[in-house]
Amino acid sequence: MEDQISKISDAANRMRISSIEQTAKANSGHPTSSCSAAEIVATLFFSEMRYSVKEPKHASADRFVLSKGHACPILYAAWEEAGLLTREQVLTLRKLNSDIEGHPTPRLSFIDVATGSLGQGLSCAAGMAYTGKYIDNASYRVYCLLGDSESAEGSVWEAAVGGKIPVLGNETSFASYYKLDNLVTIVDVNRLGQSRETMIGHDLFTYAKRFEAFGFNSIIVDGHDVADLLKAFDEARKVTGQPTAIIARTLKGKGIEGVEDKDNCHGKPVTLDKAEIIASKLGNKTAKNSWELENLIDDAPEVDFEIGKIKMSSPPNYQIGEKVATRLAYGNALVKLADTSKRIIALDGDVSNSTFSDKVLNKYPQQFVQCFIAEQNMVGVAVGMSCRGRTIPHASTFAVFFTRAADQIRMGAISFANVKFAGSHAGVSIGEDGPSQMGLEDLALFRAVPNSIVLYPSDAVSTEYATELAANYKGITFTRTGRPNTPVIYPNDEKFEIGKCKVIRQTNEDKYLLIGAGVTLYECIKAHDILSSEGIQVAVIDIFSVKPLDNQTLIEQAERVGGKVLTVEDHYQTGGIGEAVSLALGDVPNVRVRSLCVKEIPRSGTPDELMDLYGISAKKIIAAVKNY
Amino acid sequence: MEDQISKISDAANRMRISSIEQTAKANSGHPTSSCSAAEIVATLFFSEMRYSVKEPKHASADRFVLSKGHACPILYAAWEEAGLLTREQVLTLRKLNSDIEGHPTPRLSFIDVATGSLGQGLSCAAGMAYTGKYIDNASYRVYCLLGDSESAEGSVWEAAVGGKIPVLGNETSFASYYKLDNLVTIVDVNRLGQSRETMIGHDLFTYAKRFEAFGFNSIIVDGHDVADLLKAFDEARKVTGQPTAIIARTLKGKGIEGVEDKDNCHGKPVTLDKAEIIASKLGNKTAKNSWELENLIDDAPEVDFEIGKIKMSSPPNYQIGEKVATRLAYGNALVKLADTSKRIIALDGDVSNSTFSDKVLNKYPQQFVQCFIAEQNMVGVAVGMSCRGRTIPHASTFAVFFTRAADQIRMGAISFANVKFAGSHAGVSIGEDGPSQMGLEDLALFRAVPNSIVLYPSDAVSTEYATELAANYKGITFTRTGRPNTPVIYPNDEKFEIGKCKVIRQTNEDKYLLIGAGVTLYECIKAHDILSSEGIQVAVIDIFSVKPLDNQTLIEQAERVGGKVLTVEDHYQTGGIGEAVSLALGDVPNVRVRSLCVKEIPRSGTPDELMDLYGISAKKIIAAVKNY
Repeated sequence: MEDQISKISDAANRMRISSIEQTAKANSGHPTSSCSAAEIVATLFFSEMRYSVKEPKHASADRFVLSKGHACPILYAAWEEAGLLTREQVLTLRKLNSDIEGHPTPRLSFIDVATGSLGQGLSCAAGMAYTGKYIDNASYRVYCLLGDSESAEGSVWEAAVGGKIPVLGNETSFASYYKLDNLVTIVDVNRLGQSRETMIGHDLFTYAKRFEAFGFNSIIVDGHDVADLLKAFDEARKVTGQPTAIIARTLKGKGIEGVEDKDNCHGKPVTLDKAEIIASKLGNKTAKNSWELENLIDDAPEVDFEIGKIKMSSPPNYQIGEKVATRLAYGNALVKLADTSKRIIALDGDVSNSTFSDKVLNKYPQQFVQCFIAEQNMVGVAVGMSCRGRTIPHASTFAVFFTRAADQIRMGAISFANVKFAGSHAGVSIGEDGPSQMGLEDLALFRAVPNSIVLYPSDAVSTEYATELAANYKGITFTRTGRPNTPVIYPNDEKFEIGKCKVIRQTNEDKYLLIGAGVTLYECIKAHDILSSEGIQVAVIDIFSVKPLDNQTLIEQAERVGGKVLTVEDHYQTGGIGEAVSLALGDVPNVRVRSLCVKEIPRSGTPDELMDLYGISAKKIIAAVKNY
Repeated sequence: MEDQISKISDAANRMRISSIEQTAKANSGHPTSSCSAAEIVATLFFSEMRYSVKEPKHASADRFVLSKGHACPILYAAWEEAGLLTREQVLTLRKLNSDIEGHPTPRLSFIDVATGSLGQGLSCAAGMAYTGKYIDNASYRVYCLLGDSESAEGSVWEAAVGGKIPVLGNETSFASYYKLDNLVTIVDVNRLGQSRETMIGHDLFTYAKRFEAFGFNSIIVDGHDVADLLKAFDEARKVTGQPTAIIARTLKGKGIEGVEDKDNCHGKPVTLDKAEIIASKLGNKTAKNSWELENLIDDAPEVDFEIGKIKMSSPPNYQIGEKVATRLAYGNALVKLADTSKRIIALDGDVSNSTFSDKVLNKYPQQFVQCFIAEQNMVGVAVGMSCRGRTIPHASTFAVFFTRAADQIRMGAISFANVKFAGSHAGVSIGEDGPSQMGLEDLALFRAVPNSIVLYPSDAVSTEYATELAANYKGITFTRTGRPNTPVIYPNDEKFEIGKCKVIRQTNEDKYLLIGAGVTLYECIKAHDILSSEGIQVAVIDIFSVKPLDNQTLIEQAERVGGKVLTVEDHYQTGGIGEAVSLALGDVPNVRVRSLCVKEIPRSGTPDELMDLYGISAKKIIAAVKNY
């Protein structure tokens, strides 16, 4: 035991030295935030965790999430100590051609989720732990290292939130509600933020009380005392029905003379020559230990799906003209995907009876995760559940409430996450609930995600196929659904593709091209019919795939009608269909684009009143065509 | 006392009836969420609060924030009972021409902040309470009604977060850290969410423990017992150095037979005939009381600024060619604004030494609010501080971290808030820290805000004027600043305007128009110089005002050069300068637009390496011009 403790302490010091050298060489980065966590990370990697150095993403390996991503030099140092990385490799920190980046990303084999936007790691870790406990039914455990400063982020408490306090004997939270006893979070309480001391400094007791109030078992330790840490991890392993929070008192910059526990040293590397002096004082001479690390319990099962080959259990089954809300069709499709795999998971933020993800809850309760009204956590949990390809999470809520999780979605993109988002209640066509409930920026939000797919089906048939297409794309997808019932316009065997639109009205006399989607497609059709009766011919496109756009068809059709294009969308202008089409056609000579969209803060009213008031009704389309 | 209790109870019942009738008439809305809060709101409005019915936004009136915005019928009913609204008016709920909207907005004289996206009210209330206690030094108090479901939102705990637990004798949190003893939050624990029971149902003790862990005084009450509520408010009034959370046990749908405390009744109005029966059972016959409500303590001072006439204490003072980061110039300008008014406030999320808002902290600590790493709360507090025109809050952090608060910014827009945002560390030009820290969606985020102003100054002089212009615009503004030092290109007396760009290079031989901003402007200038030396003339525009765009100049210049426009931006494509300019020029015949922007997830590297790798360097601009 004494020997183990001193071996780990030595490893921590070597890792500390490596962190200092990495950042000194890069002349940027966060040595002080790394040094406070050296013993915590060393104890995890060289005693507590069971994993594979040869295969860091092994399905049965324990997971480690560095929520305080800026401390990544200590993580790189751990993998160096474990033998995966060489000193030369970690010394490429922050260089252009190196994946040893300034904040961790899954470009590295041992990273599941990108971190660096603070306070997000615990949600992802909770998603992994949920998957381990309930989907994989496997032994692997999940560890999440939090900074003390980042515990000010509400997302941390969303991840934790919900638990009855255990002293009442009612152990329940997200982490605690779901009894994630395979989850341990360690808070590195080094007292100092970037610009000043945190609100509560070294008041470990308050941190502990907070986690307890959210349903965690909590343990206070000296974060530089390996024996104390070993004991805490051991205790956490014995706790059942509850996650554990280890509150670790540490010193920022621990081991760096003149810097340790001092303010104004955040994100400041030491010089290379000073790094050498520190190294010699810390005992650089200690020989590197060889660790026996291929010790995981290989009990996670194979997954039961193959991306690219996922099919709904049956095709759409609607009548042309039947009125069905696209949100309902989404629910129908999701159940039909869940029919085919236990790992198609629906996540909800307490609106499943509006988004119709409750169809999964009703048929397959074990494939449904209720995340309550905590959208940031829902997205983080989904990102965590998608890691290592263990599940295909489908997170749905009102389109507008994804805005609450915009930063989690952004980080999900940097994590190369495979999450399917579906947002209902798009635009002013939701009617009476008013502007706070209207999705008017959601297309922009999801279009801005690099490599994302954004689908905007208009009827029930296309919605079902959109849902199936999304499930077969590896990456972030968004499907926009609507609240009102709209008629089915496509036969049940219509073929839809990512990146392809549908030209649904065209004649040889067309002089204008109308581009609609969802509710506005029906307004375009109405406008088409009236204009046609007046002798004005217009082509109509159902855009379906907002990203990628079907540039080829758009250009062909725009040129065919003589260049006058009008986009109509139930969305704000910024980042919407009008801007996307404008840029796509911006380089085509003699093509012009005008955009009808929502241009001000809407108000309550009926859907039809609002569509007209905000300029996206058939009437307003007709006026725009006549004034083109 | 008995008499007062029964008067308030009667008022609560009348308000309950009004809520039921409003929603029955509208055939939509949330009667059950209203009824659980009837006694709480009645006790507040007819005993506890001091306000003015004649002038609801009186500077000295107590404030009420309905965080659970969907329960607005009970709030409309309270103002009906108080005499501000008539029954006819409240019965226009959710109609197009009525401001009695489905969720409350400041289109109504008695609403400070729009609610309806859950979990945001407490931050706004904390901002108001902070202003009352520290800026106004006035007697008014702030009350915030929270739903139990929404307490799952992390933003609630950001508002609360930070406090040492008072049993240790160390009263500090945001609300508790700043000792906001003029703030009372009431949690309406009606046990039921939209789709199911909340995680902890009627476990009042756990709610109380959570608020206590975040530094609040907590009181558990029966939320339908007026005597209990009166006592609790009285106790809260006596607590010093701490905010109070009143945890109220209530029943959803209280008073509606067959609906009270039942699941599946969220957002479902009763029929009009049933409303009548309920009304008669509840005692509709009680005569309306006349209340004496003009009882505020008029001690809030006049403000010391006038929007439109705010000037920096001195003009910019730089040398042409001097290298200054625009973030530094922002800090300089902010101090010069703070020189002129005690109500120019800087808000920070623990990065003030990077955004340079610490210049205000250093000179005027009382005009600086540290919000720690909790961006959602920072934005909510700023929105709250701007209410009633009490202050002009300037919230700054890294541009990318405003994405964390995207939903708060969205709700700020619906609140018609007057908040100045400034985001530093824009784009890949921040370099080594990597993608998690790079603002690449911030222009889209703020452009999407209706009526917003988005300024993107390129040098120190224009940044100072941008900051002054923003302070004089009533509404949401965003100023984008950069991390690297860039040369000053404008004289100190250059004139800048919202909606005006600067043509900084032009000849009669120009064949292309380059549009840049910030770091890319300098790349455009470099490209211009090289191209010019090769005999290829290009005009260069500094866009400065991204929203509104200077359409007139853009069109004139695009046509003048023959129609070939190239935008260059350190931002993703979606909602950025390229798309904005494309749509602005989309309807101009013979003008083409191409866009250079960041198109994938970036990585770590030096700023120059990254700008070249992602296609926005002078070299890549030159290639794009030659291939146009």
